[in-house]
Amino acid sequence: MNNFTYCNPVQIIFGKGSISELSDLISPDEKVMITYGGGSIKRNGVYDQVMDALKNHVVVEYGGIEPNPRFETLMQAVEKARREEIDFLLAVGGGSVVDGTKFIAAAIPFEPGNEWHILSKRAEIEDAIPFGCVLTLPATGSEMNPTAVISREETAEKLVFSSPLVYPQFSILDPEATYTLPERQTVNGIVDTFVHITEQYLTFPTGAALQDRQAEGLILALLDEGPKALQSPRNYTVRANLMWISTQALNGLIGCGVPGDWATHMIGHELTALYGIDHARTLAVVLPALLRHQKDRKADKLTQYAERVWNIREGSRDERIEAGIAKTENCFHSLGVPTRLSDYSIGAEAADAVAERIRKRGASFGEHGDIGPKEIAEILKLAM
Amino acid sequence: MNNFTYCNPVQIIFGKGSISELSDLISPDEKVMITYGGGSIKRNGVYDQVMDALKNHVVVEYGGIEPNPRFETLMQAVEKARREEIDFLLAVGGGSVVDGTKFIAAAIPFEPGNEWHILSKRAEIEDAIPFGCVLTLPATGSEMNPTAVISREETAEKLVFSSPLVYPQFSILDPEATYTLPERQTVNGIVDTFVHITEQYLTFPTGAALQDRQAEGLILALLDEGPKALQSPRNYTVRANLMWISTQALNGLIGCGVPGDWATHMIGHELTALYGIDHARTLAVVLPALLRHQKDRKADKLTQYAERVWNIREGSRDERIEAGIAKTENCFHSLGVPTRLSDYSIGAEAADAVAERIRKRGASFGEHGDIGPKEIAEILKLAM
Repeated sequence: MNNFTYCNPVQIIFGKGSISELSDLISPDEKVMITYGGGSIKRNGVYDQVMDALKNHVVVEYGGIEPNPRFETLMQAVEKARREEIDFLLAVGGGSVVDGTKFIAAAIPFEPGNEWHILSKRAEIEDAIPFGCVLTLPATGSEMNPTAVISREETAEKLVFSSPLVYPQFSILDPEATYTLPERQTVNGIVDTFVHITEQYLTFPTGAALQDRQAEGLILALLDEGPKALQSPRNYTVRANLMWISTQALNGLIGCGVPGDWATHMIGHELTALYGIDHARTLAVVLPALLRHQKDRKADKLTQYAERVWNIREGSRDERIEAGIAKTENCFHSLGVPTRLSDYSIGAEAADAVAERIRKRGASFGEHGDIGPKEIAEILKLAM
Repeated sequence: MNNFTYCNPVQIIFGKGSISELSDLISPDEKVMITYGGGSIKRNGVYDQVMDALKNHVVVEYGGIEPNPRFETLMQAVEKARREEIDFLLAVGGGSVVDGTKFIAAAIPFEPGNEWHILSKRAEIEDAIPFGCVLTLPATGSEMNPTAVISREETAEKLVFSSPLVYPQFSILDPEATYTLPERQTVNGIVDTFVHITEQYLTFPTGAALQDRQAEGLILALLDEGPKALQSPRNYTVRANLMWISTQALNGLIGCGVPGDWATHMIGHELTALYGIDHARTLAVVLPALLRHQKDRKADKLTQYAERVWNIREGSRDERIEAGIAKTENCFHSLGVPTRLSDYSIGAEAADAVAERIRKRGASFGEHGDIGPKEIAEILKLAM
């Protein structure tokens, strides 16, 4: 097991009716800016619950944060927050709103004019406005981690930043807030969660017995509960399980002491930036191809995955590995999620286009740090 | 799933060589009191590593905290800390030292003369001295939770207190510090960890799919790794796994949204207080008897446990439940831990003696809150 440090200070308030606890979580002396997305919170009752809980607070709003939140949009929120002298931000939405709010929180006290450096240069953040979350879409785990992914339209970039200063102070997880999610978003959340787990699990063994069991437990619970949410979208227990699974999948715990891959995410980000495919759906395309491309180096973990998750114990090692990857693909298909670029009418040119963008950035990914432009082109050709 | 809140702010520093990080974790302006137990840290090199890391700090010491730390001893440490105007406590040892240090931290600023009320009246704590841990014995999970168990010799009591103010600021977990543990202490740690998990898992279902998988994952990893530590006490990976498993077993995570039993612990505390049996060994006596006594009400979880942990899928429901309990007993026996009171030459009088003590205190335990004196006597008679 590798050495690690772990500290996750986020306060989770989980369960039905928990939005009402907002009134005690934010001091009435603090001027609050609520950030949200396209307005679904005004249709599903969440906005009303939030405003009712904050009826004794001074509240301003910034709505319109889009999926794959854009720097250009977020900077408008930063300017509003500066103008209004906001003390506390409250993200009400899914991962895009939470990620966007992390950027707003960090950018408000940052040097005006250079806020993009937080992403492009990973400039160190020395301060951030405190914030909390009311989660409405389980998927990204952003509600319990210090990381955000932000896009810039001007340059078609999608970049990551991370700082302990942008852990949410609290996150309210009320499963009832997810009852009215469109099925497509529920499915995307399941796939995103699945791949968050595999990024930290399907690498190479470091003897981390518990982390492996925790990752397998997350996948097994997700496989049990995910399909039920499509059948019974208003089943509280199912929605509660999905919400807690997605949070635990990316709060740092299963990544303790083990290598991380993240190549699927980094390649997926490029497909979203270039072709506008939903984040989760890019992952479903990249993951099976990446696992096949890397199957020799990931063989120990892929064999364990096939056995412990899919109960595959027959056949040669290669056959078991391939059967595990095929089960993964079938799982995505059963949720109605395609796993090929051709399903999006994208041809072989994508492989070179993505590889070229990575080459320009001088980047490489994966648990060995050697998934570079050449390997990325090969992986995307396997995903045609 | 039940509503819950969860926030665990402890910073974990895990891995070989991590004791040297102490120098950065405690401000050099703070006067430190190191607390420890019987002096094993002076023989295994841990004391020297700690003192080397703190060579630029003002450090005083308080040694001699015993297993099942006694109020009488701890009050001497409180008086020394007050006299020396200590700013920071550093517990170097196992769960007893960590628990004892939590009490010292809370008692220093508490009303002089009434410190016992922290335990006897569960008096609210409004302040505590900050502290950190260097763990040398994985077992109790105290290094990542806000709870302590303290004994009072005068009254043969063993009581619990808990406060968010006694979360350690940090805990250093260096698996190499456990290489020289006596086998008895390694075994006790495995059994204690095992029962911490079952207290939160073997209750009744609340549909908490992930928490169940997390508990099962902890048990499976513990069953894999525990016996290896007896064969290869200096195997780093095995020691690292045991350390991280025992911490995760009682840091609150698997208890989120589910009921807790804790009757085994509460009955076990009485056996330690009355007969001086090691804490973990009392649990090995009580658990199988308690599970048999409660097998109808715990049937759903016991069946799941038999299947997912022990792979028992044949036979009637009752047979599978009994087979799972028998496997648990065999597991304790394989570690050399007895599971009967008669193994300690204790007779049927113990059942009434413990029940009488619980009756006097008006207490009852278990996930339904109805394991009272009568049930406790029945359970202990099953454990003869």
